[in-house]
Amino acid sequence: MTKVLIDCDPGHDDATAILYAARHLELVGISTVYGNQSVDKTTQNALSLTALLGIDVPVARGCEQPLIRTFRHGGDVHGKTGIDGAELPAPRQEAIDAHAVDFIIETASRYREELVLCPIGPFTNVALALRKEPRLARWLRGISCMGGTTQVGNTTPVAEFNIWCDPEAADVVFRSGVHIWMVGLNVTRQVGITEGDIARLNEGGAVARAYGGLFGFFRRRLGEIHGLSTASLHDPCALVPFIDPNLITYANCPVEIELGDGLTRGMTVCDFRTLTSARLENIRSRSASNCEVAVGVRARSLVEHIMEAILTWPDHDAVARREPARS
Amino acid sequence: MTKVLIDCDPGHDDATAILYAARHLELVGISTVYGNQSVDKTTQNALSLTALLGIDVPVARGCEQPLIRTFRHGGDVHGKTGIDGAELPAPRQEAIDAHAVDFIIETASRYREELVLCPIGPFTNVALALRKEPRLARWLRGISCMGGTTQVGNTTPVAEFNIWCDPEAADVVFRSGVHIWMVGLNVTRQVGITEGDIARLNEGGAVARAYGGLFGFFRRRLGEIHGLSTASLHDPCALVPFIDPNLITYANCPVEIELGDGLTRGMTVCDFRTLTSARLENIRSRSASNCEVAVGVRARSLVEHIMEAILTWPDHDAVARREPARS
Amino acid sequence: MTKVLIDCDPGHDDATAILYAARHLELVGISTVYGNQSVDKTTQNALSLTALLGIDVPVARGCEQPLIRTFRHGGDVHGKTGIDGAELPAPRQEAIDAHAVDFIIETASRYREELVLCPIGPFTNVALALRKEPRLARWLRGISCMGGTTQVGNTTPVAEFNIWCDPEAADVVFRSGVHIWMVGLNVTRQVGITEGDIARLNEGGAVARAYGGLFGFFRRRLGEIHGLSTASLHDPCALVPFIDPNLITYANCPVEIELGDGLTRGMTVCDFRTLTSARLENIRSRSASNCEVAVGVRARSLVEHIMEAILTWPDHDAVARREPARS
Amino acid sequence: MTKVLIDCDPGHDDATAILYAARHLELVGISTVYGNQSVDKTTQNALSLTALLGIDVPVARGCEQPLIRTFRHGGDVHGKTGIDGAELPAPRQEAIDAHAVDFIIETASRYREELVLCPIGPFTNVALALRKEPRLARWLRGISCMGGTTQVGNTTPVAEFNIWCDPEAADVVFRSGVHIWMVGLNVTRQVGITEGDIARLNEGGAVARAYGGLFGFFRRRLGEIHGLSTASLHDPCALVPFIDPNLITYANCPVEIELGDGLTRGMTVCDFRTLTSARLENIRSRSASNCEVAVGVRARSLVEHIMEAILTWPDHDAVARREPARS
Repeated sequence: MTKVLIDCDPGHDDATAILYAARHLELVGISTVYGNQSVDKTTQNALSLTALLGIDVPVARGCEQPLIRTFRHGGDVHGKTGIDGAELPAPRQEAIDAHAVDFIIETASRYREELVLCPIGPFTNVALALRKEPRLARWLRGISCMGGTTQVGNTTPVAEFNIWCDPEAADVVFRSGVHIWMVGLNVTRQVGITEGDIARLNEGGAVARAYGGLFGFFRRRLGEIHGLSTASLHDPCALVPFIDPNLITYANCPVEIELGDGLTRGMTVCDFRTLTSARLENIRSRSASNCEVAVGVRARSLVEHIMEAILTWPDHDAVARREPARS
Repeated sequence: MTKVLIDCDPGHDDATAILYAARHLELVGISTVYGNQSVDKTTQNALSLTALLGIDVPVARGCEQPLIRTFRHGGDVHGKTGIDGAELPAPRQEAIDAHAVDFIIETASRYREELVLCPIGPFTNVALALRKEPRLARWLRGISCMGGTTQVGNTTPVAEFNIWCDPEAADVVFRSGVHIWMVGLNVTRQVGITEGDIARLNEGGAVARAYGGLFGFFRRRLGEIHGLSTASLHDPCALVPFIDPNLITYANCPVEIELGDGLTRGMTVCDFRTLTSARLENIRSRSASNCEVAVGVRARSLVEHIMEAILTWPDHDAVARREPARS
Repeated sequence: MTKVLIDCDPGHDDATAILYAARHLELVGISTVYGNQSVDKTTQNALSLTALLGIDVPVARGCEQPLIRTFRHGGDVHGKTGIDGAELPAPRQEAIDAHAVDFIIETASRYREELVLCPIGPFTNVALALRKEPRLARWLRGISCMGGTTQVGNTTPVAEFNIWCDPEAADVVFRSGVHIWMVGLNVTRQVGITEGDIARLNEGGAVARAYGGLFGFFRRRLGEIHGLSTASLHDPCALVPFIDPNLITYANCPVEIELGDGLTRGMTVCDFRTLTSARLENIRSRSASNCEVAVGVRARSLVEHIMEAILTWPDHDAVARREPARS
Repeated sequence: MTKVLIDCDPGHDDATAILYAARHLELVGISTVYGNQSVDKTTQNALSLTALLGIDVPVARGCEQPLIRTFRHGGDVHGKTGIDGAELPAPRQEAIDAHAVDFIIETASRYREELVLCPIGPFTNVALALRKEPRLARWLRGISCMGGTTQVGNTTPVAEFNIWCDPEAADVVFRSGVHIWMVGLNVTRQVGITEGDIARLNEGGAVARAYGGLFGFFRRRLGEIHGLSTASLHDPCALVPFIDPNLITYANCPVEIELGDGLTRGMTVCDFRTLTSARLENIRSRSASNCEVAVGVRARSLVEHIMEAILTWPDHDAVARREPARS
């Protein structure tokens, strides 16, 4: 069973990734980062989620700002808490003492060539870890991230939020030499929870109903802001290659991050010319293929697979005990 | 009948645009620019094409370098002459005395609100004309260009050749306030001349055989360099809105040109978020919709329409007289 | 006597450059450009100045906007008219029919290898002329400009106004291969008209009194905005190499223009390492020396020389006739 | 006595800074970074220097690459070892277990509001520490760095080596809100060890002779590469405000780092307009004054003060014992 460490900023879809990983993979740790909300809130949310799911996974708090510049939280899509829409249980554990950067380094050192690191928020923790301990690049089996897009963006015309938050950190990751799987908006926006799915969740157990609440809020906001009709499950897509590789198709190509201050800052520039060109030397690509880029998805099958993971998640004591208090 | 002035760098597909415009529109002039080859060669080619087609259209020579920086000609795709593959007749007229910049200004001034300007090479002449005579923006009915892409590029991962040659000039045009139709690689690469089409041309008259020779060369080069299987008729697509608007679908959206020196220089950044977003104010688009961007094409119908224009073009004396000399 | 064509945006110091050139050189023409004010106003000002001075020099109107982007006039330093502080006579001639770009090309073509072009406003006209007629670079004896700085800027921390207005145009000029003399703020701010100088002018004839009024306004504004105590005679400095080369010292070095959108846009990057370095190949300079950069000035001598030119300028009929009307 | 932690890449002038700090201040630690050579070599050099000087100061190894991009070592000025010119004793201690980033954070946490951090190499360790532990900005008394320039650069026309190595890290530091003293090339190049100074050192004790050897090599290389006639003691200048504030004059002004990829990457853009302008609101400075920038130096007095520190340094056992082994 693949060992994964999820670096995240929960976040509605992050919450789904945690459950999906805990169900199908060996989730050895969670580290947190600013992004969908401040790192204070995303850390709290991660701890609450482990309580909701009744899982015992260490949570390490990480960075509160990108490598350079200053980040200002919008909270547009994920609400004031970063995960509006359901009342989550209070945490039953605290964040561990180690900083996320050190937790990532130590975990990768313990499970050499076994660990897949899954950044599904801004890449700041991962970049700092690679800079503090360059051997990390050799210790990891791979990095499977949610970030970027091959087509339209969500934060600018061409940039996706996670990458746009810290393009310099993403640049460090994409140049690290680690094997990378990147699933971007072009795929993740197809993986949408519908109104019908939400209704099914709301008829389930306590955990399912919590996710139903989260998805209801998330779907409404994505509709208001981006004109979407479903709640995009961006983040769990990053786990798919290790759960069921048939669900998402990847293409190998060079990816670089635009760091300039112009229109395209934070764009994941994928050189898809390499996929069609007969004479690669003619296209003067600036880099070799460094990334598996998600290009296709059996979207409904993946949604069903995730739905099943949620619907069959056991309601444990913590949730059960908490229930009466809510009413 | 729409009046058009074609600003071009023939170029195989430029040659097709000239014939297609001469057949269906009122082609009031041709101006030339560096691009597929030096302006010396593209001017010579434009004059030879008017001889081949037996048309009497003034040709004005234009700029030999982009607004800034220095351009170096590759000649990769279009060959040493800029239009390899057929022996064209010698010119029967000379370029007119006026510079392309002044010819564009004067023609637009003569046909106020009637003239459509069609830049199908780098936009240098058009930008200089707009800067020298700002009223040009009001005098034109519109600018319909071949340039850019909404997806993959041909000169860099995201930039198309015409825009990449002179992004600053394109920026001037896209900010000019003139009504713009932009057809890019995402559409024009679908409009491909096949081996079978070329065979049909080679059984036609002298003009058809000349185009057959041109397309044969062009198709072979695009295959070798870009891995394509057909000869993309990029440039004639810019005329389609005035010949048969049903053939290409356009979407209205903001387009800006990336001028930075990074990975994305010369990219036509289309804000397609405006097409889906329910709340436009949320996406903080930097500019209003300034452009009709081509997003779909009935490709085979368009190829057939262009084929018909070529196959039915009359062989006139010039060509006829020249024929014996060739054998 | 050196033939000069002044390309300007009068402007208080432009007005001084015109008089200074008319006194000591063969001033064969004036072209105008936006900058200190709109091109409408700077053209009007140039025409009024020829009336004030009673000189018969053709004035050609030029560009109203930079190569790219949109310029917005501040009018901070030079006032609402672009030359506040004295009531100038009404023009007695009109601008010639030719556009500045064509006037520059034609004049240089007439006086091959004899003409010095003096841009003392934004470089837009000159850049367009070089792009429209590349042979212009060979026809000119040289370009002597006021622009840039080797130290502190006036429009940004490191950029001077003329270059900052149109960095892309300056880039074209500095890469043109023409012999360039550049005098920047580091020198021109030392060439300051004092309160005492102004008092002397105000006791002179009609022309001297007009310049006294102009300098009074200009000195006050530079004090308020930039904290200077004298009125900097930037523009006439560009003529000094052809009037008295002992007054300003130039050093030969590579100069490039920063075109990026960051903090330093429009900076004249002078590679002064070439002045001290024993092993030039070690410094990896990106370009060869393309420019004589002003580094020192006998400032008071130059001010006195300019003062003398103003104080001894004859009051001619136009001014005399006009005087009564003022009271 | 001021507590200082020196973050360095020894380096000839770093070696001098360590001695100068150890003599006059409380040197509580040394952290190392790539720069003048690889971090392996600079760490080794730092350990050898503590052996040479017989001081017991913890040395923490730091980063081997900048925040983004890849650094390639030239070794031009400081030679193959990073500190060529004298045979230094073998280290008598090892680097401590903690990474430089954590050592900086822990030391600042221990000596809250007392510690001055002195980065005299690339700023990578400091930036990572600020990102990993944002409270560091409050814990420090200040940051006094050697880096940047107000005039000519040494690595590019306008950029100094330490900043140019990692402009993004410098940006983090300059935006951190910590009180900053910056001494750049404009001052440090004046602080030059002459041939005569070197002769005096070579007649001194073992430590003095070691520094004499180092300076001899360094002076020769600076002469060959940069055309200088003395060995610039860049790094010890950063300690001067805490040893004798009369020796270097600082001016308070806004400083930002250029991060663009153009000609000026890594430039320390100082807005000196704020020093002269009467109406600050007119200059539209992008940031408030965040830095004390060194603008003047009593250079010979400072050289003599440093010379005295070296010449009077006691030769301790380690050096004494080692001496026989050399002959």
